Amino acid sequence: MSVTSPDATEGASPTDTRQLLLEAATFVFAEKGFREATIREICQRAGANVAAVNYHFRDKEGLYEAVLTTCRNDHRNPENHLSMDSTVPPAVRLEAYVRWMFRRVLALDREFPLGQILNREMIEPTPALSRIVEVHIRPEARWLASLMRDLLGPSFSREELSRATMSVVGQILFYKHCSSVIHFLDETLMPRRDDFEAHVRHITEFTLAATAGLRARREAESSWTPTAFDSNSPEPFFKSPKVD
Amino acid sequence: MSVTSPDATEGASPTDTRQLLLEAATFVFAEKGFREATIREICQRAGANVAAVNYHFRDKEGLYEAVLTTCRNDHRNPENHLSMDSTVPPAVRLEAYVRWMFRRVLALDREFPLGQILNREMIEPTPALSRIVEVHIRPEARWLASLMRDLLGPSFSREELSRATMSVVGQILFYKHCSSVIHFLDETLMPRRDDFEAHVRHITEFTLAATAGLRARREAESSWTPTAFDSNSPEPFFKSPKVD
Repeated sequence: MSVTSPDATEGASPTDTRQLLLEAATFVFAEKGFREATIREICQRAGANVAAVNYHFRDKEGLYEAVLTTCRNDHRNPENHLSMDSTVPPAVRLEAYVRWMFRRVLALDREFPLGQILNREMIEPTPALSRIVEVHIRPEARWLASLMRDLLGPSFSREELSRATMSVVGQILFYKHCSSVIHFLDETLMPRRDDFEAHVRHITEFTLAATAGLRARREAESSWTPTAFDSNSPEPFFKSPKVD
Repeated sequence: MSVTSPDATEGASPTDTRQLLLEAATFVFAEKGFREATIREICQRAGANVAAVNYHFRDKEGLYEAVLTTCRNDHRNPENHLSMDSTVPPAVRLEAYVRWMFRRVLALDREFPLGQILNREMIEPTPALSRIVEVHIRPEARWLASLMRDLLGPSFSREELSRATMSVVGQILFYKHCSSVIHFLDETLMPRRDDFEAHVRHITEFTLAATAGLRARREAESSWTPTAFDSNSPEPFFKSPKVD
């Protein structure tokens, strides 16, 4: 993408300018991170001036928060795993989740810059992280924990379901957070477009084998009966939000 | 630890000074990271002068490299998983590895500063990372991949063993790299001293259930025979080193 010239929005309506600023900011925040991004670069890219940022978003923090809220909608498209309900078999839901999360983590979708922004926030959190957790990460964690309950059955505790959820996510995020190590260790192990599906399959099958084995063992334990599960116990990741 | 006064090594032999510098540097590099650490602070802590750093280590890079080589020996103590041979049952070796790696990643052992140095290198690699991979990470990855082969049996390919190895490590490193997210999501999920063993058990059992299930499925596949495995195929993570 080429940099839009500063006068590109001459005659643009305030709504257009707001939208152009949001798009430019999304791109620049994803590319540079919150700290390195400058209002100047964002304005240059949007063909807007600093006063427009002040008018629509108050400041860089406000603009960042608006970007995070806009990106939220990407979660809600019909192909997304979160739209899958419990009538879809758990194994199918798991594979869809692993594929979606992995694509986001590896930033395979250029049209989905939230991935890069989330990746950065994990390594270098900004004050917006608590908001990001509530808007983006908590709904995803709840969804995945409920899938883990479908896989593991009703006899696992809140802590056990939470840990199983993190075992899935950890397998995926590893490739992002340790890419520099993998590069030196054996760069052929980094997922590429031509073996991406083999990685998705591995993580899905590793997880399905783990959950099936843990479930079978738990159900074989004589002390366990389905009614022993307290359905009133709190759900994983349903803790009340810390922000707002 | 209090800061040693600048004249503490008056009359110290060069060997003492070298050792004091190494200890001080290990502490400071672990605490501040390579970039933020200063020769000045290291010298102050060691009670040595800058000339001694030049004499023994040439410069900050040389001192860092010496620290990395010294820490190496911590890998070789008798309680370490790497000293376990193939006569120890794989499940026992896995649990010992998970516990050791998890302690290092969470920096639970103050006496093991290499953990903090490795954690930093994953997030903010320095030019020393390729050396760190060869000295510390590759031997560990080979050890773990060979354990994964013991768990999975002989019918898995190099890529499959590598991915299974990364599925174990990813589950552990998650708690380090995503600690800021876990903090907002549900801080009770961060391992503490009183539930650390429950985390070790979860990751060990999740992995054992996964490998047992994958192995059983592979062995049930009609096409598979033990002799089909090519024992001459390259081992995982045995790629020739890139440095030196």
